[in-house]
Amino acid sequence: MILLTLAYRGTLFSGYQVQPGKRTVQGCMQDAIENIYGIRYPVVGCSRTDAGVHARDFKMTFSPDGHNAPNIPPMRIPAALNAALPDDIAVLSAEVVPTSFHVRHDVYEKEYEYLIYNSPVRSPFMTDMAYHYRHPLDMGAMENAADAFLGTHDFRGFMASGSDIADTVRTVRRVSVLREGDLVRIRISADGFLYNMVRIFVGTLLAVSEGKIHAADLPDIIASCDRSRAGMTVPACGLYLSHVIFSKPNTQREEETG
Amino acid sequence: MILLTLAYRGTLFSGYQVQPGKRTVQGCMQDAIENIYGIRYPVVGCSRTDAGVHARDFKMTFSPDGHNAPNIPPMRIPAALNAALPDDIAVLSAEVVPTSFHVRHDVYEKEYEYLIYNSPVRSPFMTDMAYHYRHPLDMGAMENAADAFLGTHDFRGFMASGSDIADTVRTVRRVSVLREGDLVRIRISADGFLYNMVRIFVGTLLAVSEGKIHAADLPDIIASCDRSRAGMTVPACGLYLSHVIFSKPNTQREEETG
Repeated sequence: MILLTLAYRGTLFSGYQVQPGKRTVQGCMQDAIENIYGIRYPVVGCSRTDAGVHARDFKMTFSPDGHNAPNIPPMRIPAALNAALPDDIAVLSAEVVPTSFHVRHDVYEKEYEYLIYNSPVRSPFMTDMAYHYRHPLDMGAMENAADAFLGTHDFRGFMASGSDIADTVRTVRRVSVLREGDLVRIRISADGFLYNMVRIFVGTLLAVSEGKIHAADLPDIIASCDRSRAGMTVPACGLYLSHVIFSKPNTQREEETG
Repeated sequence: MILLTLAYRGTLFSGYQVQPGKRTVQGCMQDAIENIYGIRYPVVGCSRTDAGVHARDFKMTFSPDGHNAPNIPPMRIPAALNAALPDDIAVLSAEVVPTSFHVRHDVYEKEYEYLIYNSPVRSPFMTDMAYHYRHPLDMGAMENAADAFLGTHDFRGFMASGSDIADTVRTVRRVSVLREGDLVRIRISADGFLYNMVRIFVGTLLAVSEGKIHAADLPDIIASCDRSRAGMTVPACGLYLSHVIFSKPNTQREEETG
């Protein structure tokens, strides 16, 4: 089995998952793999990002193990696939993993970053790459508020309404709110995320900056599991899947099975 | 007369200057100004950037002085124009300047920055925003070589062939070659630039990194005024007009005439 690391700009994709008649990351990857192997292999991705969401470190597996499959050395795979892929996806690396590996079940931690371009005037260079927020942000209030999300909580109130998922408890391991010039980077690392959880988390921090939600009330708001008490869902264009860590290093896995 | 500071992403423009049937920066600005003033005023730009070239600090003037012109306070002009402009142009500021001011003739210095994305694999986030150069760059050699461009020289050998311009002497005041992760920023400040001068300057630095041109030969290559001895013209997508300085501060001008 081959594990690929991808980066993609989500702007022109209808999200990760294949949908009939739509341009998707999964569809483009299956096309490119078919292009170089001559066989249409299924691919499995580490998460199903929404339309417009970007990824800097997306993980994907496929198993080119039919008896007719060409044996392409892993170090040659990125260049071969990149030549067959459009400009808004790139394969950064490829490695062999044991067939026991699962790119979604074996995730130990994911990090998302949300980018806000915080300036009175939009930037032509940030269109669809960050959320443009015109008003000054209260960085101190946002930093303090973010800490309320740390730890293990039922995050049902920070999930898009309409999702039906049994287990809504997640553990948030790290959060940070940083300013670099006009860019504000909000990072959150957890063992997993509910649907729209990061975008509602960021919308809630913006509500704190605007004085609409008090940071001291956040533990109560989280505990209430009430979606209507959290902030708005900020746009997809600012969201980046920025890091994925597996439960055991892949190299160790290779030794285990080798 | 109103002096505007603009930023634009050049990717989808056929350059600055109006051309029939083409999408240009000048044309879009005239449309937006007509939209808010109801009159199509001519605009004058500080330079005529090529198709694909970006600007972070482009200067432009227009004179909304017909007797029917609405009197829009300068501080309101950016928001009004931005609402009428597409996402790939933004008006950053507007100020009043005396009618004696000329946005091209009164330029004291311009700075261009050329961005190279230097990594074996392309970045989906840098498409059309930087030149993708796959091979490792010899930063030390490029830094040393860049210094040969400092000072007053006849740069005819660093001009696109076919340009007919009488005076090809320019004074380069500062050059720098900096790496930030995978991004290499090459900056050059001068009293003026010949057509494609920055792109040939960068192509020459790449030829030095590749060992095709020796840094020690650069003074001779410049003095030869022979285009064929300089490096290639690198693509437009990496080029940014990054700073424009006028010969006297505008505030001082206002005092002088006020």
